[in-house]
Amino acid sequence: MKILIDCFGCDNPKEWTRGIADAINQVDGVSIIAVGDRDFIEDSLSGETFDRSRLEIVHTTEMITNDDFPAEAIRKKRDSSLVRALKMLRDDDSIKALISAGSTGAVLVGSIVIIGNCEGVERPGLSALMPCDNGKTVLIADCGANMDCDADNLLDFARYGSSYIKSVYGIEKPAVALLSVGVEDKKGNNLTKEAFALLKESGLNFVGNMEARDALSGKYDVIVTDGFPGNVLIKSFEGAAKTVSGMMAQYLMKNAPKDTDLSFVKKSFGQLGAALDTSSTGGAVLLGLKKIVIKSHGNATAINTVNSIKQAKKMIEGGYLDDLG
Amino acid sequence: MKILIDCFGCDNPKEWTRGIADAINQVDGVSIIAVGDRDFIEDSLSGETFDRSRLEIVHTTEMITNDDFPAEAIRKKRDSSLVRALKMLRDDDSIKALISAGSTGAVLVGSIVIIGNCEGVERPGLSALMPCDNGKTVLIADCGANMDCDADNLLDFARYGSSYIKSVYGIEKPAVALLSVGVEDKKGNNLTKEAFALLKESGLNFVGNMEARDALSGKYDVIVTDGFPGNVLIKSFEGAAKTVSGMMAQYLMKNAPKDTDLSFVKKSFGQLGAALDTSSTGGAVLLGLKKIVIKSHGNATAINTVNSIKQAKKMIEGGYLDDLG
Repeated sequence: MKILIDCFGCDNPKEWTRGIADAINQVDGVSIIAVGDRDFIEDSLSGETFDRSRLEIVHTTEMITNDDFPAEAIRKKRDSSLVRALKMLRDDDSIKALISAGSTGAVLVGSIVIIGNCEGVERPGLSALMPCDNGKTVLIADCGANMDCDADNLLDFARYGSSYIKSVYGIEKPAVALLSVGVEDKKGNNLTKEAFALLKESGLNFVGNMEARDALSGKYDVIVTDGFPGNVLIKSFEGAAKTVSGMMAQYLMKNAPKDTDLSFVKKSFGQLGAALDTSSTGGAVLLGLKKIVIKSHGNATAINTVNSIKQAKKMIEGGYLDDLG
Repeated sequence: MKILIDCFGCDNPKEWTRGIADAINQVDGVSIIAVGDRDFIEDSLSGETFDRSRLEIVHTTEMITNDDFPAEAIRKKRDSSLVRALKMLRDDDSIKALISAGSTGAVLVGSIVIIGNCEGVERPGLSALMPCDNGKTVLIADCGANMDCDADNLLDFARYGSSYIKSVYGIEKPAVALLSVGVEDKKGNNLTKEAFALLKESGLNFVGNMEARDALSGKYDVIVTDGFPGNVLIKSFEGAAKTVSGMMAQYLMKNAPKDTDLSFVKKSFGQLGAALDTSSTGGAVLLGLKKIVIKSHGNATAINTVNSIKQAKKMIEGGYLDDLG
């Protein structure tokens, strides 16, 4: 199984690229095509021991950064690691997925222009994968790439989101919910009212409207939304988690008697951080593209490379695009 | 200063009504007109000691509940505590504010129909008041009453929200921000792009776009948004706070050595709860009405009665409607 890694465009390209060695050591059955400057890639991997026969390097001379205008960069930087990788994914059916930690805009635009959307899909959705209270993972789409969606867009996010959860987690009928301002059928805005009707007739396991406070309850596998409130949802959780754990740390430090052994408090914060760590669930998936493209965090490190490659493997083996693409 | 209390329509009317006695004891210079069934009100206050000369009871025979359709209830239940109170507020200029903990829909519809909007205001906004990391309070409007807003609606929320913060907290030029998906000027959807242009020209202290994760940072006094993402924002914070503090409690209990005195942990959770408690900031305000109407939580208790009355007093004394109404 061949997977492409775009080595450039992220904050820590060296760390990100170094993760390829870890992935080869930890994930069976995959070979990696690393795309970027050959010397840089060789240098990033120089201290690592791994099966070199499972790595191919494709040398490119340009890179796309967050300072580039996405559409222009995709058009003009033809020898960038991202554009070259996307073209290889498009042209070579033996290559199954592309993972990039580069500019979200460039990955999105490049994927739409070079790979193309699945039949009937107008706009690919960007998913966020968040860890739930009960250890499950919830997919939220769209999480900020698509503003001013229509109801058909939301139906597409639901279909591809369901297929993602089914392929990666083996859940036969993922529970799909619609983000709204109340759980009652009639609650919401013009968009959610239209989308509600479509989802009800979709044949998916649509469980109705849900409220933001229950997003991580584990009751839902897929939460469908326009990208604007979707983005508000994930950033609110992020902000609140930081605020609440920060306040709690302050209070505990202030209130603890002087000679208290606080190692159990430290351990607890470590566990909290691990439970809330979204990197364990992999990168964001572009839902509705003809091929598998995963967008990892801009500040990704080696652990994200490994997790995204594991995620891609599960999607491929689980048949993510088989009924849809 | 006369303030109306709608005694009915909430989950704990007895507790809510009993709070009137506490308010009279704690808040100087206000007299209360309690509207509802006379016997019930007398009974709720029977064990309390307070200056009876500062309480007037207006007897009504009906009540509006959450099971009523708001518009129909306002039209038909003419002797309900809410409708009677709204009419008194409209007709008697010596009465300065109305506080209700009843059905949000009925309070909104009743206020629009009976009190009316300020000149030029199409839809009154419902504000949420949330405590920030640094002890400040941020007003978020709309927080869920108005779906599918236009840019003019958002400008109204900004104007009345600013006036609220100025009147209650004495901040001369409240910092107004627009909820979006990034801080850059061009980020957002069609609505925020239009609203951005209006806010920039508004003469308010508009500080630009903000992201949901920074809502409680204390950098902003007023956050303006359509009611759909506004509702997602406040419910996400609520959900995340519950999730994170719940997880932290579990970890601490599990990790603490057997003989640890956990009273400092308990104290810390108490402080966290107090810091996150929105009841301290008062009820939601209907922004853009001709008179002051405050909507307290449906599950309000006596402390909410007191805080809402304090809040109303500050709004009146601070001249909330003086430049606007």
